[in-house]
Amino acid sequence: MQIIDGKQTAKDIKREIAEEVAKLVASGQRPPHLAAILVGNDGGSETYVANKVKACEDCGFESSTLRFDATITEDELIAHIKGLNENPNVDGFIVQLPLPKHINEERVIEAIDYHKDVDGFHPINVGRLSIGLPGFKSATPSGIIELLDRYHIDTKGKHAVVLGRSNIVGKPIAMLLMQKAKPGDCTVTVCHSSTQNLKEICLQADIIIAALGCPEFVKADMVKPGAVIIDVGTTRVADATRPTGYRLTGDVDFANVAEKASYITPVPGGVGPMTICSLMKNTLLARKGELFNF
Amino acid sequence: MQIIDGKQTAKDIKREIAEEVAKLVASGQRPPHLAAILVGNDGGSETYVANKVKACEDCGFESSTLRFDATITEDELIAHIKGLNENPNVDGFIVQLPLPKHINEERVIEAIDYHKDVDGFHPINVGRLSIGLPGFKSATPSGIIELLDRYHIDTKGKHAVVLGRSNIVGKPIAMLLMQKAKPGDCTVTVCHSSTQNLKEICLQADIIIAALGCPEFVKADMVKPGAVIIDVGTTRVADATRPTGYRLTGDVDFANVAEKASYITPVPGGVGPMTICSLMKNTLLARKGELFNF
Repeated sequence: MQIIDGKQTAKDIKREIAEEVAKLVASGQRPPHLAAILVGNDGGSETYVANKVKACEDCGFESSTLRFDATITEDELIAHIKGLNENPNVDGFIVQLPLPKHINEERVIEAIDYHKDVDGFHPINVGRLSIGLPGFKSATPSGIIELLDRYHIDTKGKHAVVLGRSNIVGKPIAMLLMQKAKPGDCTVTVCHSSTQNLKEICLQADIIIAALGCPEFVKADMVKPGAVIIDVGTTRVADATRPTGYRLTGDVDFANVAEKASYITPVPGGVGPMTICSLMKNTLLARKGELFNF
Repeated sequence: MQIIDGKQTAKDIKREIAEEVAKLVASGQRPPHLAAILVGNDGGSETYVANKVKACEDCGFESSTLRFDATITEDELIAHIKGLNENPNVDGFIVQLPLPKHINEERVIEAIDYHKDVDGFHPINVGRLSIGLPGFKSATPSGIIELLDRYHIDTKGKHAVVLGRSNIVGKPIAMLLMQKAKPGDCTVTVCHSSTQNLKEICLQADIIIAALGCPEFVKADMVKPGAVIIDVGTTRVADATRPTGYRLTGDVDFANVAEKASYITPVPGGVGPMTICSLMKNTLLARKGELFNF
């Protein structure tokens, strides 16, 4: 069994990006610039945006954060998005989700110029990913593909079982894994809350992508010996022994499943660090401006 | 075993559309207008466009066909597309595929205003289908969902196996079947040319969607008793006994599979007639202009 070290892989990729940025800057060009819009005071969002700022520093990017009160109207928010769309010094930006309930997230996402949609949430990028065209791939699925690639995991003709059908992980990773690509070319099964005989389906999997948000859902008796296990879950479970009062728990019963797996991602330190890393890759792509040229 | 009569269902739907159009016209509004762009002289395309014109007549739509030589340049074609985008009297239009090899189909498709993309091939409509947002759903998958609905076939929690991963059938029908919707909410497996143990996977299917383009690929020994069989294949197989010299053959060995199935679509007369029907539904939706209002 080999542990897939997402933390180290993310570090490697950020170093590669930083090298490319250094060359860009040495040739007289400005570095990539990622902006983030943050509405309200959600603790998780604050942490994520702080991590993003740190990753930008690691990569030699410029970054900026636009903060707004939770009382901002949808139209005001969209006016700020249009400002970023038109700002030639901003290559890409994200709107940190979730947004306050009075704001329609889908309308906000579609207001982003898809050329700057480095989160890959705009329908045009979702559609391009499905079709197999270049575009911004959403960060977590893209990070998973990168891990499979860097660990030289054979995926062609393998049966990948995706647990969860969310728009940000389950559906796009299913689409990426079924493409005739490398990594990819998998037979893909998508399971979810309505799936019957889930255990039997998981037992057929050569690769399991667990993205349900249910702590330790995947047990050892659901896993075929030698399977590759990618754990996307990150649920905060109360833990009085930790200074924070909680521990991050994945969707996989790691201790028992690891014994049967050929490769497995830990939580934390697996898929998590790859997500921000993919966002950095997308921002560099946005800076280069080559993605959408036919 | 019940045969799913796509021909009759399509007739019913066209009558329903015609009734709605009659009301529209009676209220003083103009009927929907569908245009088609046809490049070169492909026999299959000619037939399809002729069928479309006929369907428009059945539904009370206006229709028009723009014909161009196979020598048209990509830029000229795109200029005509822009003309249709801006023409307020055209609600929706299609560019008949395939296009001559010197033309980039994806660039042409993305030139279509997605508000008029009644084929549902523009990435923004593909993405909206994946996310579960309103949009133009591509015609064949949409026709399949309509058949499942009108025949009251229970899909929730069922295992649907999709054979084929094309952008116009396999991928979008997989996406529609996995949505938390009715019909939908299926566990979905997508199989293709790289799939191993295809027979074992098919034997688990409650619903098989065969969209490979391989005549009579699905044999009786690949089908679980009581399965629902949707056959999307339409290959012309030489047949000297027919006046045309060929017969349309599906991806399913109908005679033998029908004995085991609970429901099955014939070829011809199953999914085929539903495809143009879905195009008519999309054109009516375009006329009403409600799809993309947030």
